[in-house]
Amino acid sequence: MAPNELFQYSIVTALMDGVADSGLPLSDLLPRGDFGLGTFRHMVGEMIVLDGIIYQMKADGSVTSFSRDQLNKAVTPFAMVTHFRPTLVTKVTVKSKEDFGKMLTDLMPQAKNIYSSIRLEGKFKAVVVRTVGGQQHPGEKLSKLAESQVAHTFKDVQGSIVGFRSPSYMQGISVAGDHLHFISADRRQGGHLLELQTDGEAELAIAAIRIIHTELPAGDDFIQATLQTDSEGITKAES
Amino acid sequence: MAPNELFQYSIVTALMDGVADSGLPLSDLLPRGDFGLGTFRHMVGEMIVLDGIIYQMKADGSVTSFSRDQLNKAVTPFAMVTHFRPTLVTKVTVKSKEDFGKMLTDLMPQAKNIYSSIRLEGKFKAVVVRTVGGQQHPGEKLSKLAESQVAHTFKDVQGSIVGFRSPSYMQGISVAGDHLHFISADRRQGGHLLELQTDGEAELAIAAIRIIHTELPAGDDFIQATLQTDSEGITKAES
Repeated sequence: MAPNELFQYSIVTALMDGVADSGLPLSDLLPRGDFGLGTFRHMVGEMIVLDGIIYQMKADGSVTSFSRDQLNKAVTPFAMVTHFRPTLVTKVTVKSKEDFGKMLTDLMPQAKNIYSSIRLEGKFKAVVVRTVGGQQHPGEKLSKLAESQVAHTFKDVQGSIVGFRSPSYMQGISVAGDHLHFISADRRQGGHLLELQTDGEAELAIAAIRIIHTELPAGDDFIQATLQTDSEGITKAES
Repeated sequence: MAPNELFQYSIVTALMDGVADSGLPLSDLLPRGDFGLGTFRHMVGEMIVLDGIIYQMKADGSVTSFSRDQLNKAVTPFAMVTHFRPTLVTKVTVKSKEDFGKMLTDLMPQAKNIYSSIRLEGKFKAVVVRTVGGQQHPGEKLSKLAESQVAHTFKDVQGSIVGFRSPSYMQGISVAGDHLHFISADRRQGGHLLELQTDGEAELAIAAIRIIHTELPAGDDFIQATLQTDSEGITKAES
């Protein structure tokens, strides 16, 4: 895959339907991109892929990374990765997630109907994340899990925000709008980003994506799933 | 691209919105697949790609093919192609398009949530097709064009039906359900398939598709389009 192409495994609607029993080995994910996000088997925690390392951020607040020989033992039921080569790098001061969203729209007016990859690097006054605790039984839906998700607030923390903006017509395939995960610089804290405020200027890097490679799961749970797009549910669970 | 992977240029919703001013040169389409369908600049006619040749089927009933040195002079604003290697080949007798749809579901119960490529080869008692006449002005929407489409009925004709079944969650990206084009064996008649009845047994070949490569247009008309999925409109225009 060339730089700034997107590889996606499965679709968000499958996660919503609880399809998380099997997936793509992490050793097959990493060659497709060194930057991105996703989740793990049974939706145990949040995945961030940064500088070629896959991190698992769990609901208890812990973060672990995968060594090279662990990569073929774990799978992802949903992930989006790219070989990120920023085409726009700038300094920004961000007051809120909403503010950040508007900023991205202003910076990339040409990107409304395509994907973008986004990295925000710096010091944060506050970052609010959630981490999904994982399915209590096979097939439990993300819409259900999201109801009992745990939020953490990290204050005065150095770190990276990593993710993608997807066009609105891709709702259900990916998450329409901004889907961002956070990991601290010491790689000890992180999760799915709910809110943020930078401490002064942070470095924003963006690239537009026009080529998407999608791999659909072969597992029985995917084959038999309903997969009806639930836009409201996705917004609740993933925005 | 490996066999039985799908390459798609643009999305159906863009056609619905009238985005057909520019597109992918046909010389860039053919390396991605020797089998498929699509349309041409300003939606002038229907495209069928069969055995590595691109045919343009126009509203006046004529069919032309593109020679090798014409391929870089024409573009497609929407196309789906694959290197088709059938994994299931069988003889079928088909009474109607609805009947054909049920048959495909029965033959490939595992394919509900993935794509399939479909080829039906044989003699037909009757085939009804439509061909879009093309935009009267730049940006004219397919939903509008479809209202004035011309239908042709071909009787006792030898030919090929070519196309794809797309999962319902892909409505708007591609056409959910069966999207099929027809071309006669003498390559002189064809169009977007509305109805069919085989004359005795025809040969059906199918393959499942789990890997999709999507290229989104870079043109201004795509960048500025609304691209709001109109499921009812797509069904009317493309089913």
